Amino acid sequence: MTDNAPIGGGILAAAGFRSAAVKCGIKADALDLALLVSDAPASVAAVLTTSKAVAAPVIVCRDHLAQSGGIGRAIVVNSGCANACTGQTGMAAAREMATVTARSVGCSLEQVLIASTGVIGLHLDVDKVARGLERAVGMLGRDASRAAAEAIMTTDLSPKEAALRVRSSAGVFAIGGMVKGAGMIEPMMATMLGFLTTDAAIAPALLQRALAEVTDDTFNAITVDGECSTNDSVFLMASGTSGVTIDDDLYPHFVAGLREVCGTLARNIVRGGEGATKLVSVNVSGGRTQDEAKRAAHAIANSPLVKTALHGGDPNWGRLVAVAGRAGVDFDLSHSRVQIGTTVLFENDTMHADREPQAAEHLKGKEVSVGVDLGVGGPGEATVWTCDLSSEYVHINADYRS
Amino acid sequence: MTDNAPIGGGILAAAGFRSAAVKCGIKADALDLALLVSDAPASVAAVLTTSKAVAAPVIVCRDHLAQSGGIGRAIVVNSGCANACTGQTGMAAAREMATVTARSVGCSLEQVLIASTGVIGLHLDVDKVARGLERAVGMLGRDASRAAAEAIMTTDLSPKEAALRVRSSAGVFAIGGMVKGAGMIEPMMATMLGFLTTDAAIAPALLQRALAEVTDDTFNAITVDGECSTNDSVFLMASGTSGVTIDDDLYPHFVAGLREVCGTLARNIVRGGEGATKLVSVNVSGGRTQDEAKRAAHAIANSPLVKTALHGGDPNWGRLVAVAGRAGVDFDLSHSRVQIGTTVLFENDTMHADREPQAAEHLKGKEVSVGVDLGVGGPGEATVWTCDLSSEYVHINADYRS
Repeated sequence: MTDNAPIGGGILAAAGFRSAAVKCGIKADALDLALLVSDAPASVAAVLTTSKAVAAPVIVCRDHLAQSGGIGRAIVVNSGCANACTGQTGMAAAREMATVTARSVGCSLEQVLIASTGVIGLHLDVDKVARGLERAVGMLGRDASRAAAEAIMTTDLSPKEAALRVRSSAGVFAIGGMVKGAGMIEPMMATMLGFLTTDAAIAPALLQRALAEVTDDTFNAITVDGECSTNDSVFLMASGTSGVTIDDDLYPHFVAGLREVCGTLARNIVRGGEGATKLVSVNVSGGRTQDEAKRAAHAIANSPLVKTALHGGDPNWGRLVAVAGRAGVDFDLSHSRVQIGTTVLFENDTMHADREPQAAEHLKGKEVSVGVDLGVGGPGEATVWTCDLSSEYVHINADYRS
Repeated sequence: MTDNAPIGGGILAAAGFRSAAVKCGIKADALDLALLVSDAPASVAAVLTTSKAVAAPVIVCRDHLAQSGGIGRAIVVNSGCANACTGQTGMAAAREMATVTARSVGCSLEQVLIASTGVIGLHLDVDKVARGLERAVGMLGRDASRAAAEAIMTTDLSPKEAALRVRSSAGVFAIGGMVKGAGMIEPMMATMLGFLTTDAAIAPALLQRALAEVTDDTFNAITVDGECSTNDSVFLMASGTSGVTIDDDLYPHFVAGLREVCGTLARNIVRGGEGATKLVSVNVSGGRTQDEAKRAAHAIANSPLVKTALHGGDPNWGRLVAVAGRAGVDFDLSHSRVQIGTTVLFENDTMHADREPQAAEHLKGKEVSVGVDLGVGGPGEATVWTCDLSSEYVHINADYRS
């Protein structure tokens, strides 16, 4: 783990992949279609939304993953239209999007995965996608990672990429990725759109295990607004081009690297949250169980009163207590502790109002932390990353479609 | 029920009660202490917060209600300080507040109920309360209902009162009340501050049953921001002065009147929600059970994406579907239906984009409705009232203490 080094290149940091991004015309004048292709059949893993209002592309991916046994060649993503709640027309469009990709790339249909993001309840113009795909296939190269990260954006303010060089006893390999996500972010049940690659060789089942494990404490431990979307998906492709094979011995090493990349991308989603001005780490301890600590941390991280206080730089610790008390988990007020940054403001039933200026100073930063000990004396601990709630969030979402 | 008529007078519409409100000095220059006294011992009922971070006055009320067997004489309420998370000092202050009231009014300690609302984690200046109480007792009268409703306000924009004249086979009686609540409102587990009176005669046990029953589909069916407070309480006192005794036969009649008063007050809380510009009725049908319909309705009513879209007047029905899908209840997208006002925008897997202008027109109103059928074909139905989410909410709560 200690030898890992952040590198550039995003989804193309790993060898064996090519990418392209084009303006296919779903958006007025912006990159809106990204194509990622593995030179040879690759292991693929995916974590898909568990929302019951599931979008057409997610249904197609479930089918293809089941049919391919975890082997894939291409992922195509459009932004501007989520192809969700679009009925049979939407399903036909999603299947057509995959079919055109398979034909253009020259692989079997089940080796194609697709994703869409944008407005719900808008029909996907599959002709635009098809024409865009034809151009994209001709442009595939090793330098389009940033363009691809741009093409998957919706209200994101900037593209989000990360990559890591991992040195292992069996050799060097890379893990990289890109994500989009700004609103409708709380992947408690699954996750937002993320695309990851590695040039390590790893069997599909082990790859899936690693992705599920890492997603749980990275993408599933962030929230912007408590929402979970119809299209949430994370994909991971392993080309094997590095020649390093991940066996049981190397697995922890691989997972550690993957966790580092996913953690960086997850925190970048929160930093880029709609209207966000601060990245907030919510740390809960002393819970009866880890699950209870997680539930309390998510409740605090989603509380409008906590998020607005953080926006205003107000060390209003009473709101943290109030949320912990209503979170539906074991909570003992007289043994609880509340801190902002490293400043303890409430402990042993005693408030420390004199320390509030110190806490207010901490809250002026761009990266802040709040901590609540539930006072139950249990082993439960959890961290959730969130952002503050600003007027800008309201402006963005009141005017999203107009 | 049909003979019921709205009347003025709030908590003093019912005979047998007197009230007063004073500036006791917790707030800079505003009414901040209200006293409500029954001329004779009255039946009392209460629904108190189920938050585990419970404020001192709530603990005192629990004790007194247990000791008095549901008989009370006086309720005293201060605003500006919640006396929550104030430890043993806060408990002593709350008990002192009740003791001073009992002495001033001339009743036993357990016949006094107390409530506090305002900033959490601030010590209550009980000397100010005591001096205020002495003045208030001297001012008790039959015309101070509106002043009392003002004295319990925090960020509320206006006092909230309602009252009803109920004609029954046994004679005429009145039910009235006042509430406060603007932020930290989602009494799923208990309720906000509310004070109700009636001059009907009703035994404490039956009064408690009526209050619990009515609270469930009035005060517990509203939300402003999904928060539940440390101090949430609703009290109901019955003086019996009208001479009408509520027996089992008249009970449904009494409950209907109480529901009317509490429903009006509850909707007024939402109308006066922090930053609210619209009252929104969220109607969910077709749920597997009533509980599932309620959970879906609360999820929709608390969704920042739904609330911002409503604020912007955007008939973005896709967000309603997305929330229903992630609400953790049975949901069948292809049999679901979404409507805004009376306009159906999504049904049988088919969207009706052409009808959006009609839905947008409905959303221009001050009182709007959205409906989601979960498509499961079950009997579950629920209505929750909420408001839109505006920049003003952020401003109010980012700057609450500064």
